[in-house]
Amino acid sequence: MVHNGIEYGDMQLIGESYDILKTVAGMSNQELHETFTKWNEGKLDSFLIEITSLIFAKKDVDVYDANGNLNPSDESRYLVDMILDCTGNKGTGKMTIKEGAEQGIACPTMASALDSRFISFCKDDRVEMSKKLTGPGEVPQVDRDQLLQDVEDALYASKICSYAQGMNLIKAASKANGWDVNLGDCARIWRGGCIIRAKFLDLITQAYERDPDLPSLLIDPFFMDEINSRQSSWRRVVALCVATGIACPSMSSSLAYFDAFRRERLSANLLQAQRDFFGSHTFERTDKPRGEMFHCKWTSKHA
Amino acid sequence: MVHNGIEYGDMQLIGESYDILKTVAGMSNQELHETFTKWNEGKLDSFLIEITSLIFAKKDVDVYDANGNLNPSDESRYLVDMILDCTGNKGTGKMTIKEGAEQGIACPTMASALDSRFISFCKDDRVEMSKKLTGPGEVPQVDRDQLLQDVEDALYASKICSYAQGMNLIKAASKANGWDVNLGDCARIWRGGCIIRAKFLDLITQAYERDPDLPSLLIDPFFMDEINSRQSSWRRVVALCVATGIACPSMSSSLAYFDAFRRERLSANLLQAQRDFFGSHTFERTDKPRGEMFHCKWTSKHA
Repeated sequence: MVHNGIEYGDMQLIGESYDILKTVAGMSNQELHETFTKWNEGKLDSFLIEITSLIFAKKDVDVYDANGNLNPSDESRYLVDMILDCTGNKGTGKMTIKEGAEQGIACPTMASALDSRFISFCKDDRVEMSKKLTGPGEVPQVDRDQLLQDVEDALYASKICSYAQGMNLIKAASKANGWDVNLGDCARIWRGGCIIRAKFLDLITQAYERDPDLPSLLIDPFFMDEINSRQSSWRRVVALCVATGIACPSMSSSLAYFDAFRRERLSANLLQAQRDFFGSHTFERTDKPRGEMFHCKWTSKHA
Repeated sequence: MVHNGIEYGDMQLIGESYDILKTVAGMSNQELHETFTKWNEGKLDSFLIEITSLIFAKKDVDVYDANGNLNPSDESRYLVDMILDCTGNKGTGKMTIKEGAEQGIACPTMASALDSRFISFCKDDRVEMSKKLTGPGEVPQVDRDQLLQDVEDALYASKICSYAQGMNLIKAASKANGWDVNLGDCARIWRGGCIIRAKFLDLITQAYERDPDLPSLLIDPFFMDEINSRQSSWRRVVALCVATGIACPSMSSSLAYFDAFRRERLSANLLQAQRDFFGSHTFERTDKPRGEMFHCKWTSKHA
């Protein structure tokens, strides 16, 4: 089940990369085909990157309707451009998100991928809303070679976050249900035949061999270096999307996931204050042992 | 139940605003108190903004332990700084997220708020990870007055997105269960006594009085103008967070929600191609009526 959530994340991250390269850099399908072919020889080597490269090369031929009749072929155009941007889902992705909420494990990359499918499904609403909601205007000039490298890095860094979420969800479910799942073996099993099959999974297996109790893939020494060294590219890509009005929910939520775990002190102290103010939910103090709960009489109206 | 999801979103958005103003602009608790007091006189006027302003003014006094004994008071410091940044939740937020997944309604603002609570809860992991994961370095110089205006606008625009998600979730659940909920009345009910009570809710009631079948709050004429006119500020705030390494998952996922609904054509055509390539899930075509499904023999190996 978590496999399918990860698959949703991978596909959405690839879709966002496509959107950026097409919309900002103006890349043609032939150039996208070449880019993904090249990416498939590097860190991103995987079944999904491979088939994406083949998809971009496919002309509008060999298409059949529901009755098995051949649709008229047109060699002058690419099939990907003729496909409606309206995605279905079979319900396996939503199970991952519901389980994440149940287990208390943050899965923002996968959740944003599922949400993106829901939004893509609202095609009629989007057509209407696109006429009324304005964007930020012109697409800025970018250095194409730099952008290509940045997007490859952003996709890879986001992917690490997505798998970190997925592995932590399996770990929590395993603990809750007494399954005793070996996370390294889990990644190894996905190597064979799965849609997310990739060399990348070997690196995950190795990480859990180094430390079976790893609290997060993000602090395995190998992945830590991989992600730390790519963060400038990653931030440039997300900032570019924000400035140009291209939604990149999975890349940006992955970055927020990284930035939240990276910080010892978050703003949740304010949330705890609010919860104690309106509901007497109590709070812990930084100068007292964990588990000791306190309540404040915030105003004269508080008991 | 959706009320509580919205409450989570509002609280997280306030927390992100606090984080930005404190971390980037270096604002003191006294300045934050004054800022939130001023915000409470404008568009953001609400119970949560009001209590947040009171929280920032509260010194470390009137605090009691679990046995009702007074904790030693210290007038030289503020209570909010002494509270641990580790948030609990009572489970009502997760029900909203699970229902969103079930109904096929994107709820990214609320989902990211729930995820942020989960991440804040992992205090020990964050302390360990903060030592290993690097950030982007220095905090840039910003114009404080501009930042204050930008954050107020970003909070307001994100809040509109969050309520748009919540109302659409109620609408979908109402339809699925035959409840026939009047969305305008729903917002009116929340005016009295709820944690999310705010003048803002009257504007929502008015929007659904104008059009009871509104597909999204985002295209009600009033809210459309409100959000269109604030998007430059909103984008500046999210881009600043991305550059400085401050997680703003709810503001950025709200912006991605806006940017996805704003675009007639998304990258979901590629997703549909992938799904047809690996699973023969079929696709619709842009040049054929909706509902007519097609399949491609992408390679010689495809049937």
